[in-house]
Amino acid sequence: MKISARNVFEGKVTALSSGPVSAEVEVVTPGGDRLIATITQGSVQTLGLAVGKPVVALIKASNVMIMTDASGVKLSARNCLAGTMEKIVEGPVSAEVILKLAGGAKVFASITREGAEALGLKQGSAATAVIKASSIIIGATD
Amino acid sequence: MKISARNVFEGKVTALSSGPVSAEVEVVTPGGDRLIATITQGSVQTLGLAVGKPVVALIKASNVMIMTDASGVKLSARNCLAGTMEKIVEGPVSAEVILKLAGGAKVFASITREGAEALGLKQGSAATAVIKASSIIIGATD
Amino acid sequence: MKISARNVFEGKVTALSSGPVSAEVEVVTPGGDRLIATITQGSVQTLGLAVGKPVVALIKASNVMIMTDASGVKLSARNCLAGTMEKIVEGPVSAEVILKLAGGAKVFASITREGAEALGLKQGSAATAVIKASSIIIGATD
Repeated sequence: MKISARNVFEGKVTALSSGPVSAEVEVVTPGGDRLIATITQGSVQTLGLAVGKPVVALIKASNVMIMTDASGVKLSARNCLAGTMEKIVEGPVSAEVILKLAGGAKVFASITREGAEALGLKQGSAATAVIKASSIIIGATD
Repeated sequence: MKISARNVFEGKVTALSSGPVSAEVEVVTPGGDRLIATITQGSVQTLGLAVGKPVVALIKASNVMIMTDASGVKLSARNCLAGTMEKIVEGPVSAEVILKLAGGAKVFASITREGAEALGLKQGSAATAVIKASSIIIGATD
Repeated sequence: MKISARNVFEGKVTALSSGPVSAEVEVVTPGGDRLIATITQGSVQTLGLAVGKPVVALIKASNVMIMTDASGVKLSARNCLAGTMEKIVEGPVSAEVILKLAGGAKVFASITREGAEALGLKQGSAATAVIKASSIIIGATD
């Protein structure tokens, strides 16, 4: 599979909690980075998801927010992933930033240029990637 | 908190309707602009949400659509916010537009340049920001 | 209605399955292209949706992913639409690509420039648009 989503995390399902309609899937990468995805119960069946199954978690760069100075704030987003800024590419309107997580996974975020400037992002600084669980697509190969 | 989301609305929870899995949160800004967010019931608990609690509503500019000439159309999106175009910044592919709502809140939208041109947006013209309730993240500080 | 969403598909509701909170709406265009949208049960009522009703399906270009070489992969995203690359416009950070589906509908995707390059997209090549059902807004005129 080749896909335009900049974020393709390979990992294994480590937890699966199912309701009547939707399900929450926890995926952990080999390096130990952890993602929570919300998908439909129908997709759990179609993909044959179960704890231990290898999957990919796909996230568009435009669905990732970057936060700094998270002191004392709680967010409804299920994924708040701490890391270090690795690279920033600025265009006239958009900017692409790459954040390296503790486990080694790289998160690509597409944010507005003004947003990047307001945060004062620079290589090596600490930042957090914020991703809604519903923005994550799960893929499986069999 | 500093975050790349261009839209950070401070307000208070004015209504909260909870189902078994998800909850709908109404947030009103000091100027009277109103947003509806859908979050999980788990997040309502984690954030300690209740009517009257001060919160922030976060929305990525890429999750905002701009509509003009809404005559007779109903949309499934819960947030259709009427306002006035304040600024348009065009890049080669993307454009960032700023819409000022009746209550004074400014909504940033990142749309395609062709989309902006097709709408014929210009400063001072009337437009509506369309935002899905599921695109809004709620944050709270205690 | 004029809207910044690059994807405005006119069609008819061909199936509607409702749960207590959310509903799944199938929309088919005159050319036979098929989309699945997830909306709230409240919106089904407000819009008066029923099988046979003409509607529009709105999708932001930033919510569309492009996939090539889908061999053996299953995704949790409900919409995986096969088509042919029609046009690619590259900016410094973003790229807009247009995919033509079998039924004639055109899908606009806003992806990162690096994502477009990694896929090796070119005019006439086969590709698949991947869209989450929750990214689709349904509109109706009466």
